[in-house]
Amino acid sequence: MIKVHINCDMAESYGNLKVGNDKAILPLVDAVNIACGFHGGDPLTIETTIYAAIELGIEVGAHPSYPDLSGFGRRHMEMSAQELSACLRYQICAIKSITESLGGKLNHVKAHGALYNTAAKNKREAEIIVNTVYSIDPHLKIFAPYGSEMAKAASSKGMAVMFESFADRSYDSDGFLVSRSIDGSVISDPKNVLTQVSNILNGHLKSMDGNMIPIHSDTICVHGDHATVVESLILIRKTFGQKTNA
Amino acid sequence: MIKVHINCDMAESYGNLKVGNDKAILPLVDAVNIACGFHGGDPLTIETTIYAAIELGIEVGAHPSYPDLSGFGRRHMEMSAQELSACLRYQICAIKSITESLGGKLNHVKAHGALYNTAAKNKREAEIIVNTVYSIDPHLKIFAPYGSEMAKAASSKGMAVMFESFADRSYDSDGFLVSRSIDGSVISDPKNVLTQVSNILNGHLKSMDGNMIPIHSDTICVHGDHATVVESLILIRKTFGQKTNA
Amino acid sequence: MIKVHINCDMAESYGNLKVGNDKAILPLVDAVNIACGFHGGDPLTIETTIYAAIELGIEVGAHPSYPDLSGFGRRHMEMSAQELSACLRYQICAIKSITESLGGKLNHVKAHGALYNTAAKNKREAEIIVNTVYSIDPHLKIFAPYGSEMAKAASSKGMAVMFESFADRSYDSDGFLVSRSIDGSVISDPKNVLTQVSNILNGHLKSMDGNMIPIHSDTICVHGDHATVVESLILIRKTFGQKTNA
Amino acid sequence: MIKVHINCDMAESYGNLKVGNDKAILPLVDAVNIACGFHGGDPLTIETTIYAAIELGIEVGAHPSYPDLSGFGRRHMEMSAQELSACLRYQICAIKSITESLGGKLNHVKAHGALYNTAAKNKREAEIIVNTVYSIDPHLKIFAPYGSEMAKAASSKGMAVMFESFADRSYDSDGFLVSRSIDGSVISDPKNVLTQVSNILNGHLKSMDGNMIPIHSDTICVHGDHATVVESLILIRKTFGQKTNA
Repeated sequence: MIKVHINCDMAESYGNLKVGNDKAILPLVDAVNIACGFHGGDPLTIETTIYAAIELGIEVGAHPSYPDLSGFGRRHMEMSAQELSACLRYQICAIKSITESLGGKLNHVKAHGALYNTAAKNKREAEIIVNTVYSIDPHLKIFAPYGSEMAKAASSKGMAVMFESFADRSYDSDGFLVSRSIDGSVISDPKNVLTQVSNILNGHLKSMDGNMIPIHSDTICVHGDHATVVESLILIRKTFGQKTNA
Repeated sequence: MIKVHINCDMAESYGNLKVGNDKAILPLVDAVNIACGFHGGDPLTIETTIYAAIELGIEVGAHPSYPDLSGFGRRHMEMSAQELSACLRYQICAIKSITESLGGKLNHVKAHGALYNTAAKNKREAEIIVNTVYSIDPHLKIFAPYGSEMAKAASSKGMAVMFESFADRSYDSDGFLVSRSIDGSVISDPKNVLTQVSNILNGHLKSMDGNMIPIHSDTICVHGDHATVVESLILIRKTFGQKTNA
Repeated sequence: MIKVHINCDMAESYGNLKVGNDKAILPLVDAVNIACGFHGGDPLTIETTIYAAIELGIEVGAHPSYPDLSGFGRRHMEMSAQELSACLRYQICAIKSITESLGGKLNHVKAHGALYNTAAKNKREAEIIVNTVYSIDPHLKIFAPYGSEMAKAASSKGMAVMFESFADRSYDSDGFLVSRSIDGSVISDPKNVLTQVSNILNGHLKSMDGNMIPIHSDTICVHGDHATVVESLILIRKTFGQKTNA
Repeated sequence: MIKVHINCDMAESYGNLKVGNDKAILPLVDAVNIACGFHGGDPLTIETTIYAAIELGIEVGAHPSYPDLSGFGRRHMEMSAQELSACLRYQICAIKSITESLGGKLNHVKAHGALYNTAAKNKREAEIIVNTVYSIDPHLKIFAPYGSEMAKAASSKGMAVMFESFADRSYDSDGFLVSRSIDGSVISDPKNVLTQVSNILNGHLKSMDGNMIPIHSDTICVHGDHATVVESLILIRKTFGQKTNA
């Protein structure tokens, strides 16, 4: 049976402002990407989520963002290289050291939202991110889309890359994510999510306009704030088997 | 048929961080208390909610808080009189002028969270709030618990007070809200919410330890972030009739 | 004697984090642009500064920004039209209503930092700003550079524009401000500031590369956070006479 | 010659909002307490300051605060034990790991502002802080006033304590700092600062009302945001000799 590696963004709630259903999702995923406080994630939510992930043996990653709480990190910001690097260092270091103080070890880094998209297409941001992560710990893995500038920058630096694809987001024919502002960009029906996972595991994707595009994927992301995520995850696990660490 | 006046805190979402189900609740309430951005409420959520309330003829109020986004305004802060007053002026003025620019008129002010509780029991904070609201517009109504320092301060200043009680929160025998940290402080079952509303309309409340306490109430608050709120509201409307402005 | 109209950005301090020397500058300027809390400006600083400006008969304007406190509003952000408009409405409305509650009247709006620069060159942002300001109060004046998209959008809408130039910043040959990241972009020597003011009053500017460029200017901005600003202002007043309202 | 150990709070600037003159102070002190972003300290300021301190061989500490940027951490907040602990863990871990990633090692923790004062007098907050620091690294030193609950909690836990006194703040007869809201609470004249340092090194302090009180002090704090700090530091160094690591 193929073992599918699933990651999910987590700890994005902020005080009483809730995102996602972390408690139900945690036991169903292999890796979590922990919000660092800049697009979501208050300290108690972060601590509680990391602790629970460590208890369950789940890989813990940092999920840094542009400093944009009111926009959930989904708006591009023009930052100087120094500003962006310091902003990333702060976030990743916080999550790394919290994880260690709770008995775990930081496994990977995955950029969030607008920063993820920008670094997928732009060498400048990709290299700023990779150089910053490298200077913190060269053994941290980078989650990035196959063929992205981010993946290239990480490989050039000799860092381990986990190619990532999305179970619940539509792609265009160039292999990029369709913007959330477009109808159909989010795949909600668990059966369609399952189909996409199945395609990905077979090395391709069906783009929104119907083309088959090749894809390499080491890890598949599901979004914790999608309404049907728990149902989708249960379906995926039933079909493709247990977690990689189970 | 008795007409029950219901208010609800709204626009507390922040970016992608969602609180409550404002869209479903709006048509069922008489007045909304709009988060001002200091415990929740990003500008677009605020604008959209005020606009929808005006369209539906619902009374619009400001719902100012301590400046504590990461704690949702539920933590007491020690602020100087000047700081607190300026902090309130900023929030109330923002909501007042946004409402006017969208074609409405600000109707009332209701303090949020820890500030609400502090001003219920302390003359100092009550008077800071009342004096600030008065200096903005002496015709604004004040929502405050019956017998509270806040209600007294507003009356002394000659301002109109709407005595407020809560449909979905338990009271102690002194007529104060039971802290959210205590089991049973939140009434979730719509039938029990209905019973409490019915009691309130008859001028009393059953406290958590079983005593009947007298209460004067001009408006009843339901919490938009409680899971059963829409069900409760539909039950209340079915039992006690239409909205006051219907 | 020519009367020079001088404006200055103010109230940008945040808690104990101080910018500028508002107290010394206030008596020397004709108009102030009040930070709205999104790039600087805590509520007490805002209130105190507006109150002092009203006392001195100085024109009060709103100085809205991208929501970027950690970057002082100097980083471009990509926001949807709805987000940007709501973000501006919130800020301008707060300042407008605070000013009114303290006995004054809002006179104008001037965008801050990266938003100012973006709206100078881009019709999209210029029109979002102008339409939002117009919907709040069509009689508000717009401060914008001569020939800018911002000035054009305001004029098209029939709004009053005050063309603005800068006493203490260098211009390129196209009449745009030289970026702060470039050496010589800030004019510090009060004598050179005076020369630039004198040139502006005579309808031209000397660009950083030595060209004379024509300029229309109804108001001249000095920056409160430049070290020599008070000295420069005293020199300007001594040379070109009293404030317009003196 | 007695060697005096001097510490200073640093990196409290936030974007363009500046506090203190870190560059001039750094070479004159033995230890720096780095703002963690919750009362001041943007990521680039934090990184730059830590880097400079490491270069100069200065001890680097974390300076965590209540989450209160608009109040500079000078307002008491009522937080649950869990919230406060998570809030501290986040801040200290960020500074610890940034310091390590830049080639240094975190030396100590010193609470900021209202949290410092609260933990000096209250066992609850003192123990929350100490337990959290201990769980991050039991070898971190604690800076705390002699005789304080904070010092006691750290000693009970077996942690190293550096007793701290202030060169530029007045004390009452009980050995507590006089509140900043009281005239004379800040000692500005460098000669008076020097006198206080001299007294401290001799084991006592002259309280504001003229009493001599005994004090144990391992490190003396100067405030970087006081106008005369550099002058005071130069005078102290001239009188009492070089830095401990010189």
